[in-house]
Amino acid sequence: MEQKIRVAIVGYGNIGKYALEAVETAPDMECAGIVRRSVEGLQQSADGQYMLDGVRAVTDINELGKVDVAILATPSRKVEENAKKYLAMGINTVDSFDIHTQIVDLRKSLDPVAKENKAVSIISAGWDPGSDSIVRTLMQSLAPKGISYTNFGPGRSMGHSVAVRAIAGVRDALSMTIPVGTGIHRRMVYVELEEGADFKAIEAAIKADPYFVNDETHVQQVDCVDDLNDVGHGVNLVRKGVSGKTHNQLFEFNMTINNPALTSQVLINMARATMRQQPGCYTMIEIPVIDMLPGDKEEIIRHLV
Amino acid sequence: MEQKIRVAIVGYGNIGKYALEAVETAPDMECAGIVRRSVEGLQQSADGQYMLDGVRAVTDINELGKVDVAILATPSRKVEENAKKYLAMGINTVDSFDIHTQIVDLRKSLDPVAKENKAVSIISAGWDPGSDSIVRTLMQSLAPKGISYTNFGPGRSMGHSVAVRAIAGVRDALSMTIPVGTGIHRRMVYVELEEGADFKAIEAAIKADPYFVNDETHVQQVDCVDDLNDVGHGVNLVRKGVSGKTHNQLFEFNMTINNPALTSQVLINMARATMRQQPGCYTMIEIPVIDMLPGDKEEIIRHLV
Repeated sequence: MEQKIRVAIVGYGNIGKYALEAVETAPDMECAGIVRRSVEGLQQSADGQYMLDGVRAVTDINELGKVDVAILATPSRKVEENAKKYLAMGINTVDSFDIHTQIVDLRKSLDPVAKENKAVSIISAGWDPGSDSIVRTLMQSLAPKGISYTNFGPGRSMGHSVAVRAIAGVRDALSMTIPVGTGIHRRMVYVELEEGADFKAIEAAIKADPYFVNDETHVQQVDCVDDLNDVGHGVNLVRKGVSGKTHNQLFEFNMTINNPALTSQVLINMARATMRQQPGCYTMIEIPVIDMLPGDKEEIIRHLV
Repeated sequence: MEQKIRVAIVGYGNIGKYALEAVETAPDMECAGIVRRSVEGLQQSADGQYMLDGVRAVTDINELGKVDVAILATPSRKVEENAKKYLAMGINTVDSFDIHTQIVDLRKSLDPVAKENKAVSIISAGWDPGSDSIVRTLMQSLAPKGISYTNFGPGRSMGHSVAVRAIAGVRDALSMTIPVGTGIHRRMVYVELEEGADFKAIEAAIKADPYFVNDETHVQQVDCVDDLNDVGHGVNLVRKGVSGKTHNQLFEFNMTINNPALTSQVLINMARATMRQQPGCYTMIEIPVIDMLPGDKEEIIRHLV
């Protein structure tokens, strides 16, 4: 039997927890452990090791023995620093870096570090950027002339929610992204206010914020934002265009999904794919889709081609 | 400026004609010529060359000078022989071999020939097998446990139409594939009969044919099958499954397309992709989607990831 891919999960928030579930269901992987800034206060096993959900938790990856891939389940702004650290140790990395405008620069920055250390990094491994990017690229290739639209939601926008929370008088906030077609989105904003805060002033501040100023935005006051919490999300990708000289070719991709569960499944798929690439840094559209699946290549071709 | 990829089109039926259109719209390609069994009766240019739709036609690919890729626009049963011939000359090949059960064997047969001659072959490059295979593989990776369905149509089935034409008394026939969901298809068969043929007997023969015996089949007599001719087709791919340990993740891909135009666009995309692979034989799920597009990698990542 082939040796299992040993995966470490760096960071144990929402994504880290779902990533552990995805590793546990992968037939070709095992979790080497969880890496956190601190293990203080965690449960300890009989031999004194710190444990989290049945897995060893450490502050230094070197305590985990051989690790093939580090899954960076940390915020996007931490990815570059963390990836470089693990690549320098010869450990492959995957992350779900989601700042679309900075992906090319991150790839350029990590590529030489990966190559020097004979390691592989796959960046922006989630659903958008990620699996949607593969579908967008495929659709573009099927109809090279035409227009694509990415319609998100219904689902939470973290960026928009954080922007609202930063406004004085807002205790908690949720911004839902509602697709209205052709890449245009409505923002449904739910706010929980501090005692004495002025709803009308806060509503005006939200609508004037750069995150919202160009979109149709509705603000509603609620007693408890947490009661609205749902990690479901969705996407509708459409392209109408021209194959060769033939017009009106129509393509569409839809999904409705649990957001962190899908992101984590993609991270695990890409962890597997790192084991099959030449050293360097890649985005998902540079990886053959067959490399995302466990098992024998010919069997996969037999069942899926 | 980079040199253009020189493509020869082998066979000039329906797919060959659309392939020429796709080559003519590709910014990084030029058509070296068309290879046919015979050029007799074709128009001749002032210098005595045979011409087809403005492109040189020959019976031997060696007459076309340097050729990077041969597009095999010939029937599936001719692919193995033709591919081996061109690979042995060091010319890359692409084909739209569509006999799903024989793809693994074809890959195994062409791979050593490609490697010996430092050439690349991409087989089964169409939409199913082809672009659908990429979507199926991606969906499988996003929800490793679950069920996928491929629903075809509405559109012509060549195989089914040919089976009906083989029945005595049938002058011409068209079998339309109608999706009724969960991978089940209705067959709508239109037949044009020979003088004196017995419709009821032919209807019974069709319904008893192995191509039709397991499907809901309706047979109608028409005056002229050619009047029904429409090369439009479609697909609906769905998967419901489990990401990690999270159930009810839903994915769907739809398209409605001109069939030969899309097949030919994929062939051209794969012709381009052959120039970027190591020697060997590949199916489309083994090719990174970025290799299907012309232009600079970083620009593609910037726009599509």
